[in-house]
Amino acid sequence: MLKIALAQMEVRADHPDINVAKMLKFIDDAKGKEADIIIFPFYAISGTLKNMAFDRSAFFEDLQTYNNDILKASDGITILFSNDVNGNVNFAASNGKFLKNERDVFYIEVRGKSYKFFCDYDDPNCRDELEFVDHDFDFIVVAAATEFVVGQKKSRDEIIKDVAKNNGCPMIYVNCVGAQNTGKTVYTFDGTSSVYNAKGEIVVRAKSFEESLTIFDLDKVNEMPPVKEVEEPEIAEIYRALHHGVKNFLKQIGMKKIVIGISGGIDSAVDAALYTDVLGPENVLLVNMPSVFNSSTTKGLSEQLAKNLGCYYMIVPIQESVDFTVSQLESIPMKRLSDGVSLKSESHIARKMSESVPSLSYEQAIDLQVSSFVKENIQARDRSSRILAALAASFGGGFTCNANKAETTIGYATMYGDSAGVLSALADLWKYQVYDLARYFNNEVYEREVIPQGIIDIVPSAELSNAQNVDEGKGDPLKYPYHDYLLKAFVEGIDDDKFRSDITPEEILTWYSEGILEEKIGCEKGLVKKYFKNAEEFIADLERWWNLFTGIAIAKRIQAPPLIAVTSQAFGSFFLAESQNGNYYTRAYKTLKEKLL
Amino acid sequence: MLKIALAQMEVRADHPDINVAKMLKFIDDAKGKEADIIIFPFYAISGTLKNMAFDRSAFFEDLQTYNNDILKASDGITILFSNDVNGNVNFAASNGKFLKNERDVFYIEVRGKSYKFFCDYDDPNCRDELEFVDHDFDFIVVAAATEFVVGQKKSRDEIIKDVAKNNGCPMIYVNCVGAQNTGKTVYTFDGTSSVYNAKGEIVVRAKSFEESLTIFDLDKVNEMPPVKEVEEPEIAEIYRALHHGVKNFLKQIGMKKIVIGISGGIDSAVDAALYTDVLGPENVLLVNMPSVFNSSTTKGLSEQLAKNLGCYYMIVPIQESVDFTVSQLESIPMKRLSDGVSLKSESHIARKMSESVPSLSYEQAIDLQVSSFVKENIQARDRSSRILAALAASFGGGFTCNANKAETTIGYATMYGDSAGVLSALADLWKYQVYDLARYFNNEVYEREVIPQGIIDIVPSAELSNAQNVDEGKGDPLKYPYHDYLLKAFVEGIDDDKFRSDITPEEILTWYSEGILEEKIGCEKGLVKKYFKNAEEFIADLERWWNLFTGIAIAKRIQAPPLIAVTSQAFGSFFLAESQNGNYYTRAYKTLKEKLL
Repeated sequence: MLKIALAQMEVRADHPDINVAKMLKFIDDAKGKEADIIIFPFYAISGTLKNMAFDRSAFFEDLQTYNNDILKASDGITILFSNDVNGNVNFAASNGKFLKNERDVFYIEVRGKSYKFFCDYDDPNCRDELEFVDHDFDFIVVAAATEFVVGQKKSRDEIIKDVAKNNGCPMIYVNCVGAQNTGKTVYTFDGTSSVYNAKGEIVVRAKSFEESLTIFDLDKVNEMPPVKEVEEPEIAEIYRALHHGVKNFLKQIGMKKIVIGISGGIDSAVDAALYTDVLGPENVLLVNMPSVFNSSTTKGLSEQLAKNLGCYYMIVPIQESVDFTVSQLESIPMKRLSDGVSLKSESHIARKMSESVPSLSYEQAIDLQVSSFVKENIQARDRSSRILAALAASFGGGFTCNANKAETTIGYATMYGDSAGVLSALADLWKYQVYDLARYFNNEVYEREVIPQGIIDIVPSAELSNAQNVDEGKGDPLKYPYHDYLLKAFVEGIDDDKFRSDITPEEILTWYSEGILEEKIGCEKGLVKKYFKNAEEFIADLERWWNLFTGIAIAKRIQAPPLIAVTSQAFGSFFLAESQNGNYYTRAYKTLKEKLL
Repeated sequence: MLKIALAQMEVRADHPDINVAKMLKFIDDAKGKEADIIIFPFYAISGTLKNMAFDRSAFFEDLQTYNNDILKASDGITILFSNDVNGNVNFAASNGKFLKNERDVFYIEVRGKSYKFFCDYDDPNCRDELEFVDHDFDFIVVAAATEFVVGQKKSRDEIIKDVAKNNGCPMIYVNCVGAQNTGKTVYTFDGTSSVYNAKGEIVVRAKSFEESLTIFDLDKVNEMPPVKEVEEPEIAEIYRALHHGVKNFLKQIGMKKIVIGISGGIDSAVDAALYTDVLGPENVLLVNMPSVFNSSTTKGLSEQLAKNLGCYYMIVPIQESVDFTVSQLESIPMKRLSDGVSLKSESHIARKMSESVPSLSYEQAIDLQVSSFVKENIQARDRSSRILAALAASFGGGFTCNANKAETTIGYATMYGDSAGVLSALADLWKYQVYDLARYFNNEVYEREVIPQGIIDIVPSAELSNAQNVDEGKGDPLKYPYHDYLLKAFVEGIDDDKFRSDITPEEILTWYSEGILEEKIGCEKGLVKKYFKNAEEFIADLERWWNLFTGIAIAKRIQAPPLIAVTSQAFGSFFLAESQNGNYYTRAYKTLKEKLL
């Protein structure tokens, strides 16, 4: 008998005090259940996502003191944990002493029986490290902190299974739960700590996104029946990640209440359902902010949504304020006041007093005109910066950004308007995933129609002008069934590549000319023909979105709120480093374009 | 005779088309001047700061095609340049062929004479690489792309001088100019391409922050007199970097006009002088936006500044709009609408239709109260998001963020208010540097008092409430002569450390208890005693700023505009990675605090 406890704990980054207190509780629990070994996730003391805290030597020295706390608690149990101490990372504390660590191989004796095991950390996707181990281990431990990425659990399992089979011994995978952020990107950790038998079958699986202490007997691993898992739709995983991410991120920044601007559209409705699910309706205030362009259809749908969820609700009209802003800015003239000196210099080259130039001493007065495009943005900023920000502070919380990944990719949002907020829960989801999530909320989470079917059915529209009249079926310039997939190829690359490479107009146009575009980017067949009469239209559309994606949208993303990542290609993350460098088209693209036109 | 041309060119990141066109011009020029060799800065074709463009294989393949353009231009000249082609970086094209590159050692023959040289790239601060070279080179080339950091030219010179002396041969340093950004951070490149003789003396020095083609004869290097350089104040370097950064960044994003909100305070005044210097007064609109809290003093100073600079000027009062917002939000009740279902569930656990709970069907109506703190933020957002954003779009440009580094460190700004904008030119400058820059503009740049002395003399204040009345000498909560240096220690570490380490409250409190704090952080002596009666007051102040710096200020910085870096510790940069993880105090700090109280 060798009883091993998997400590699937929530790790709070940069808070060794909180983490070690929790570790001590887990250790106590494990002792109570007569565990011989307890295994903690990777860097459970400090958290894993490095930031400037790690440039503080005082913080580093402080981290080291916590090793003693763990050591003291190791009476009658072996504790596997990691910490950053004098270049050592991997520790096994046992009966007040640290076991010898020989290149991450450890030996322990329990009830007269000796065990040899290997303890690896972090990411099981770093397959190489695990393949070169010897073949005489009693078990192999992977102490991880694996950022959740949708669909990746399967490949992780495959890798670990292979290692188990190759080594002919059980594998133990321990992962943390919780959320950790790198500023712009909030990663969730899904736990799902597991034990694999020597055949690579999963015999123990902890619940995802929940803290747990799971104990099993190593000697019985080969007698245990494999765990039966029902395969879930992708959206179920996404739902749990978003719920976990919102809950933990808000907890970490100490926020308990949320204000959401709801338009009667799908994104804000799904966010309303999500935050209400996390915080309870008594902590959510939904605000509808109509202008003259908002239809009674969407106003009605907003109210219905608020009723269904039972949140607080307000209607704050913006027309009066928007009109005031426009008339104020158009009625105050812009003047150049002369002091007899400055106006002589129209350039920054000849601007010194010493150069004698006759004084002009005139006053130019110009009235600015506010264009209809600027008026659209004034509406969006009036909603977020004037109303929601003030309401959030008065309500005692923050307000959300409801952007999805398609909008975020092309910057279809107003800065300090609908792109503002404390957190973007949906900004790593394509539009079709937002719809999937809406249906999932109604069917699986709430088990009733909290998001009115009308919101799911209505044409997506910003309702900022008459050109976006939903009752006339007008709305967003994006044709999501095609553009979702085009933009996804730009941002995430495509699946059938040997190595992932972000797709550019060069590949898109090549595939278009070869008639294989839909297949390549994964959208419905026939859409390209349906949406574009000819190559000219196709190219104009392609360049429009590429120009936005690699142009103004970057400026918007730089100032966008943190978002919850569900892919490895989330905006703002290390893997999607962006610079404002302007648009570029390759030579091959230009040649092909010329040929097609 | 060996004529070598230093091509100090402006590099545009991710634009090989623009860069190679420019390189070809430089090559033509150099040929016209009978140069034998022309040397380009590091990665002149692609730019140096990596971003997601480099994840696009089409972009990579495109980059490679440009090698042919350079090769074709190498008739009668040797061209040293770098590009990323099949794992090779460093190229020397000569008469239509690439010279053999033996671990970055090249051999050329010019007019029957052979030369052996070493070509290193990038950062001369990577001293190691340069020390292990052989000692029989005719010259050594450092083809660089060195991000400008204030004060670093001197140490760079020292390193290169040492290498020249150790190798007993001339050193040639070629650096680019221009600005390149990593999203949040705009780096400038200062050029100052130089030639050092075998004694390490500088004999050629190109002007900083300007494109130039400098040609010299290698055989005459030892006869050339050392360049005499006047040592400049730090602020002169900073001025040139900011001017260069603003000019190039705006050019790259295609922006020619700027709107600046001016308050009569120092930060906005310095920004007004800076942007006017770069763009000319006809492209700058200054806007004063008074509320009832703005004094006639600052209103007068704003108008005087606008007159002095000769920019466009507008006064847009905000009181009416702010009052409207407050009354609108306080008069609309917040209700919970019941559909007989949703209100039964106060938590997200018991919320399903299927559970039969008696219908409550009531309506709660609550009036929100807008606190005086929220009213302050409403003013700030009214200015930036309501007025400046709309004015900027109507004027045809963007609006600036005028924050300095002290404010940015503690988040003394309102999100979507004064922390918004297209670019922060001053956000890597401490408050004392902003004052230095104001004086530099008056004395050296404009050579007259464009920034009224009253703006330099007035107490810094946000003027958002009666508690910040400048005419009564009231203003910001920061005592800049002390806090500038405290915050600098937090963010940039302190100079006398062997290795740089960000300073935490632990070190600050230790130095305070030892009476060496002022000396350590570099502020004026006597200030600690002047500002704090006792340890209790000192600690309260210390924790106030640390809590802000590592708390809400991070949320604000995540959504802040790009800034121009003048230090290696600019907010938003790779070296200052930040996460919203909440405040933390080390055990040693807590122990010391207990002892002192």
